Amino acid sequence: MFKLLLQDGQSKLLPFDDAQCCEAFRHTAAHVLAQAVKRSFPNAKLAMGPAIENGFYYDFDVDTPFSADDLAQIEKTMKAIIKEGATLETYTLSADEARTRFAEEPYKLELINELADKGEALVFYSQGSRALPDDAQAQSRSDVAPEFEDLCCGPHLARVSDIKAFKLLSATGAYWRGSEKNKMLCRIYGTAFPKAAELEAHLAALDEAKKRDHNKLGRELELFTTSDVIGQGLPVLMPKGAKIVQILQRWIEDLEEQRGYVLTKTPSFAKADLYKISGHYDRYWDGMFKIGKNEDYALRPMTCPFQFQAYLNGSRTKSYRDLPIRYNETATLFRNESSGEMHGLIRLRQFTLAEGHIVCTPEQVEDEFFAAIDLIKHVLEVLGLSDDVHYRFSKWDENNRDKYIGEPEQWESMQAMMRTILDKSGLDYVEADGEAAFYGPKLDMQMRNVYGKEDTLFTVQIDFQLAEKFGMVYTDSKGDKQFPIIIHRSSIGCYERTLALLIEKYAGAFPLWLSPEQVRILPIADRHNDFCEQICAQLRKDGIRVELDTRSEKIGFKIREAQLAKVPYMAVIGDAEVEAGIVAVRNRKGDPDGLSGQMSIEGFRNALCEEITQRRLG
Amino acid sequence: MFKLLLQDGQSKLLPFDDAQCCEAFRHTAAHVLAQAVKRSFPNAKLAMGPAIENGFYYDFDVDTPFSADDLAQIEKTMKAIIKEGATLETYTLSADEARTRFAEEPYKLELINELADKGEALVFYSQGSRALPDDAQAQSRSDVAPEFEDLCCGPHLARVSDIKAFKLLSATGAYWRGSEKNKMLCRIYGTAFPKAAELEAHLAALDEAKKRDHNKLGRELELFTTSDVIGQGLPVLMPKGAKIVQILQRWIEDLEEQRGYVLTKTPSFAKADLYKISGHYDRYWDGMFKIGKNEDYALRPMTCPFQFQAYLNGSRTKSYRDLPIRYNETATLFRNESSGEMHGLIRLRQFTLAEGHIVCTPEQVEDEFFAAIDLIKHVLEVLGLSDDVHYRFSKWDENNRDKYIGEPEQWESMQAMMRTILDKSGLDYVEADGEAAFYGPKLDMQMRNVYGKEDTLFTVQIDFQLAEKFGMVYTDSKGDKQFPIIIHRSSIGCYERTLALLIEKYAGAFPLWLSPEQVRILPIADRHNDFCEQICAQLRKDGIRVELDTRSEKIGFKIREAQLAKVPYMAVIGDAEVEAGIVAVRNRKGDPDGLSGQMSIEGFRNALCEEITQRRLG
Repeated sequence: MFKLLLQDGQSKLLPFDDAQCCEAFRHTAAHVLAQAVKRSFPNAKLAMGPAIENGFYYDFDVDTPFSADDLAQIEKTMKAIIKEGATLETYTLSADEARTRFAEEPYKLELINELADKGEALVFYSQGSRALPDDAQAQSRSDVAPEFEDLCCGPHLARVSDIKAFKLLSATGAYWRGSEKNKMLCRIYGTAFPKAAELEAHLAALDEAKKRDHNKLGRELELFTTSDVIGQGLPVLMPKGAKIVQILQRWIEDLEEQRGYVLTKTPSFAKADLYKISGHYDRYWDGMFKIGKNEDYALRPMTCPFQFQAYLNGSRTKSYRDLPIRYNETATLFRNESSGEMHGLIRLRQFTLAEGHIVCTPEQVEDEFFAAIDLIKHVLEVLGLSDDVHYRFSKWDENNRDKYIGEPEQWESMQAMMRTILDKSGLDYVEADGEAAFYGPKLDMQMRNVYGKEDTLFTVQIDFQLAEKFGMVYTDSKGDKQFPIIIHRSSIGCYERTLALLIEKYAGAFPLWLSPEQVRILPIADRHNDFCEQICAQLRKDGIRVELDTRSEKIGFKIREAQLAKVPYMAVIGDAEVEAGIVAVRNRKGDPDGLSGQMSIEGFRNALCEEITQRRLG
Repeated sequence: MFKLLLQDGQSKLLPFDDAQCCEAFRHTAAHVLAQAVKRSFPNAKLAMGPAIENGFYYDFDVDTPFSADDLAQIEKTMKAIIKEGATLETYTLSADEARTRFAEEPYKLELINELADKGEALVFYSQGSRALPDDAQAQSRSDVAPEFEDLCCGPHLARVSDIKAFKLLSATGAYWRGSEKNKMLCRIYGTAFPKAAELEAHLAALDEAKKRDHNKLGRELELFTTSDVIGQGLPVLMPKGAKIVQILQRWIEDLEEQRGYVLTKTPSFAKADLYKISGHYDRYWDGMFKIGKNEDYALRPMTCPFQFQAYLNGSRTKSYRDLPIRYNETATLFRNESSGEMHGLIRLRQFTLAEGHIVCTPEQVEDEFFAAIDLIKHVLEVLGLSDDVHYRFSKWDENNRDKYIGEPEQWESMQAMMRTILDKSGLDYVEADGEAAFYGPKLDMQMRNVYGKEDTLFTVQIDFQLAEKFGMVYTDSKGDKQFPIIIHRSSIGCYERTLALLIEKYAGAFPLWLSPEQVRILPIADRHNDFCEQICAQLRKDGIRVELDTRSEKIGFKIREAQLAKVPYMAVIGDAEVEAGIVAVRNRKGDPDGLSGQMSIEGFRNALCEEITQRRLG
């Protein structure tokens, strides 16, 4: 149990696995970090330093970025501070007092002034000795600044000595308050635990995560690369990565066709006029790539208004009998992400979305919504990701109405409708305010990457606004014109992002049906090459992706290379196999219960075809 | 035989089917058109009016565009002029004389001044009476301007009365000298023949062509549409058109995989830096869509430098044993075509190319070139287009060296190499100077659209320059670094353009395997619907694209609609079919020798599957 010091000066005891305690623990470690930096680098200016999932960070303004040696030195100082064993104190200061004490800290001053302007209390936490200067008999103890104090709402640990195990992990750049318009600061990441063994376990897990990191592994496996002369956020999918995306794309397009979707292929850019109608011009223009000096055109950040043109340009006015119409498209989209936000294949400036819009009557919304969720669940199950996602009901923020179009009553009624559907569906979901699209509420399927960072994988949105803006109508059974409801949805989300999460999920060892190279044939000697060619040809007839390694290398070396390349199956061919006309199969896991051992070519072929057509996870 | 008046005043007799005679004939008709316009609209300013394939046009600067009534009036005047039967004369004028005579014709003045500046002779052709004014006894005949004269190199017909049959076809807008920066003029198109029967036959053929015009038929069949709010040259492929492109794309990607290609997926835009390396920045920047006010990025007009990054970013230096590497990609490309150049699905601002680059050693060029041609020939054969294309060997223009990179010797040697390959291949080709890519010579497969306009469908280029610019190397068998040769090629060209030419070739009645809707089931009465649903389900299990028309309409009406929609097969279901558990099949051509008549569902299914998998042309 740890003793926490609350803002009001009270304390309480909590175990580390309590979320508040864990946060206070690491937040206190962040303060110790800041105190250590100020000891070693007195000119460093303090920005902010919160606890985050699995750790903490603190941002500093320094002339030279921290080196690995600096981090080692700072760790030493932190250990010394923890050994000194200061207790923490909390108190408020008046705005003037605070401004005087932080006169040398411009970032803290900015925050102090903002809080003061709003009339909020200025709460501080301090740690370290409050040595009265020798010549200051007249001063009371509280008038003297402690060695370290920080504007902070707490809670914190009551004493720093509880931090038994910690580690600084990395130093990177980060903009003040996350905005590219501000100065780039230096951020130090770290983590902290009550026990050394827990820290060790966490660091080992982190190492494991790094091995799975798609941004590292995906390059090593030659799934993708990037190029400075092309630009950031614009990856080049190498043949193996492009193959996986092709397989996924065909699977999804076929699946959607079976479920009644009709495909469109619409342009990547349009006049600004189009975005003015949709409202993206008013709300999203900054995030779009504009074309030409006059910015008359822009690359699309979404597909909706383009697919709507297909609805509008059909030969005749649609009737309720024509609905629902389910449009899908493998759509290339473009978003001008800032350089700090881009990451591997997860956040890009160009990506490919399995996009879809269902135009339906109000009576059909529920069924169509269920069908959209059902498709997503099926996709997750086949990909083996069902247990990795959680569901989020993203609502508008009624205190921030400028971000949305439509009336409050419409939002309330649509959100109520969506909640009813979600409750009926039996999905286990959390609610999030302010995460809706500007035209309606949505259901997000969230997934964490290997480091625990959460991203939206798929989404289903209910839109009760855009049909009217685009003049999309249908004739109801009474012959009256009505505006349809539009469901915006994806099935497999953005192919690049899904590929990234699959790389991390399977550490590059993809299920057979998704493996760019499914079988590698390894002749032991040159005299076995002819027979290997025959096997290749036979397997390729069934569309199995086979490679043949005829290099004059030792068989052990070839096997190791195939395993490193995560090829699902190897067929090793020597004299015995040639003579008997069979193959000796090894699987990449070396699993004796998996497909392995000597078998006929026909038997091997059948086993592969079955595993592929069933899309088994392996 | 027609008498032609040459520039030097001599005449010669030629038959109409001689190209020079045909051109002179229609060029004279264009002059008659201009004369007639000046009679009826004296304020119209004359621009230019040449003969073109199958006809002629003349551009005028007028305040109000010509109406259909205007065209009828102009035709009447033309008839009167032809009846007057003027003979033509040709002569030169001095620059000063010419400027005086054309003082009121700003476009002619511009041309006169340009020719005079270059010191070229100013040749004119005139027609119509040269009436001496009553009060001008002193003037010689040649000092007086005729009713109509035009700056023109001829030749022309010696007399207008030979033009027995002509027709004005349409009036459209056209920029002076084809540049958007200039004023929009009014262009009148027409055609002319020696005999009325020939004109009739041509107009009938034109009518037939119009029915096949993909820009009309493709919209009627709901294959594609366009939208003013998206912009020109940016078509929306509707579900049926998108389906055809999907089928073609999968077929081509599979075909290329079988032939040893590896797929990439590269970004749609890049920093200007990339295009600076490739040379597109210096030679093509005007034709590209730039991104942002600073134009730091641009949408790609081609895929080459993007696919080169895949070659460059492989894990290790390639060796001669790794070559050839054949990269393919279904690539979206962007070119800033001027508004006058865009047409239907044939010339677009965004299009999808079956792109490919073969990186190989000099020794491999010949085999790879043959293989590229072989793939193209296969594609043409399957699509039924083999007899519709001709081959063009596109060479550089040695008098216009600024347009190209590389040394003259390199060009000569590469062109000699390509000629050897072409001659070996046995292809029947024409040669064209000045049509090469800026980095090397190419073979173009040319095809005409329904109006006879020629476009490049596919292309195979040999590039001996870009590997060096991008630093792409391989290690040869001696261990030395070498620059590879790159073959740029397509297999099915641009999907949108190929779709356009397929629409025109088949007048929308696509071969079964390409038909977006393959079978329509037509129940005669509601009581047959259940059985029809069963047939649907059975056929769909095999991936056959079936629709069911359950509307309460007469069966004759439903059949006519299915025929208009060019659905290959209809299955009409009445009491007899339900009772016997069979289908009554009709094909769209009503061809008794084709698949038709009563048959079992299984038999129908088998026949369909066979026609589809064999990709039969029907």
